[in-house]
Amino acid sequence: MDLISSPQNDRFKLVRLLQSQAKARRKNQQIVLEGMRLMRDALENGSTPDFVLFQEDAEAPIQEMITALQGERIKCFPVIAELMREMADTETPQGILGVFPMPNKTIPETLKLVVVADGWRDPGNLGTLIRTAAAAGVDLVALTPGTVDPYNPKTLRGGMGAQYRVAIRSMDWSQIAERLGHLAFYLADASGEVVYTDVDWTQPCAIVIGGEAHGFSRTEHQLAHQVIQIPMEAGAESLNAAVAASILIYEARRAK
Amino acid sequence: MDLISSPQNDRFKLVRLLQSQAKARRKNQQIVLEGMRLMRDALENGSTPDFVLFQEDAEAPIQEMITALQGERIKCFPVIAELMREMADTETPQGILGVFPMPNKTIPETLKLVVVADGWRDPGNLGTLIRTAAAAGVDLVALTPGTVDPYNPKTLRGGMGAQYRVAIRSMDWSQIAERLGHLAFYLADASGEVVYTDVDWTQPCAIVIGGEAHGFSRTEHQLAHQVIQIPMEAGAESLNAAVAASILIYEARRAK
Repeated sequence: MDLISSPQNDRFKLVRLLQSQAKARRKNQQIVLEGMRLMRDALENGSTPDFVLFQEDAEAPIQEMITALQGERIKCFPVIAELMREMADTETPQGILGVFPMPNKTIPETLKLVVVADGWRDPGNLGTLIRTAAAAGVDLVALTPGTVDPYNPKTLRGGMGAQYRVAIRSMDWSQIAERLGHLAFYLADASGEVVYTDVDWTQPCAIVIGGEAHGFSRTEHQLAHQVIQIPMEAGAESLNAAVAASILIYEARRAK
Repeated sequence: MDLISSPQNDRFKLVRLLQSQAKARRKNQQIVLEGMRLMRDALENGSTPDFVLFQEDAEAPIQEMITALQGERIKCFPVIAELMREMADTETPQGILGVFPMPNKTIPETLKLVVVADGWRDPGNLGTLIRTAAAAGVDLVALTPGTVDPYNPKTLRGGMGAQYRVAIRSMDWSQIAERLGHLAFYLADASGEVVYTDVDWTQPCAIVIGGEAHGFSRTEHQLAHQVIQIPMEAGAESLNAAVAASILIYEARRAK
């Protein structure tokens, strides 16, 4: 186990690339999980890391995890603190990270509840949505063009491992129409004509929610739909996108 | 209108202090609102800034706002870009900020729905909660000791002006027992014995939600209560605290 101390090291360079570029993640079909919590979630979901890097002077729980991983013949390499800092997305690095295959949960054959995140720019918000969708048993989270990458470090952190428990796909509107066109489409908007509690949630449906302060890209699709709203007090303009999504997802869930 | 260019300027120093210290905000009963959006919300809610600072080379919309504020005899001072950067909480300063009196919305006499945020450490999450509470018409958001300050720059940003539209108070458990003890207390927890959709939401109630990954401080109070849960799929450990709160708040709202 040679100590990695040079920024010229190939594994160090790969992690830096995967941390910063969605394109590199897609091309390699690899993601970086930082910290024991996210790594454990992935391991419990049956994912095996391609390799693991840990800080040379990491504390005991990390050393124990490394020993266990090495017992499974997973390649683990110590790195100097300075390089760990450069690879970490957070200001305080967690001392361990793993390069894992990109999650790829199968889409169920019969779709009952789909969420379409339309133009979500905030990575933390998208992570929160994915976490709620997994908890509620949503069948698929579809991401339209313009939505941030779901394997961004901040989105992974917000997702708390949920990226392994719910199917997530990037789809443009023509793909959505083709694959999901048989569902009832409910578009969330403050101007909606139907209050969300009056919607027929028993039928298989897709909830479309626009990103924070952008609304949904109305003109980009011609799907038959109903615009639904969450009532608000006077003066309130909108809810946080992940909050609005969660209220609607859980309302749909109780009817399924 | 002398240009402020020295870090020794008293207004510059006051803003820096208010941006960084909850104690200074409480002592002065002042907060800092960054950007036109938050400032407009405050103005629309009848709040008048003690003074406004703007970047000397600010773009036209900001200059127009300054002209309007000066028409109302509000003191506005230009500052050099470097000082604006030092005062801003965001990496990209918005070019304008105002020092406002701390919001102090009156608590309604009759309480129907109260939310207790117990030990919330994440300022953005607390902002999202306050935003949802204001939109749903919650009567009071009570913050237990250990919860972040609601006038933290990040919480103000997450709240999107909601700090002016809902009553917020810091209260310890003895104050909560004294002032809110007549309400039904519902404690949200994944281990809850009652599913949230089976709860009697028609009675006046307080929803208690623990901060992310900390849960609520069970031992700190002896209030009669019911522990309620939001159902989740196997594998999901928890929901984001602001998401859980929003689902419960909107469930309570529909019964009121």
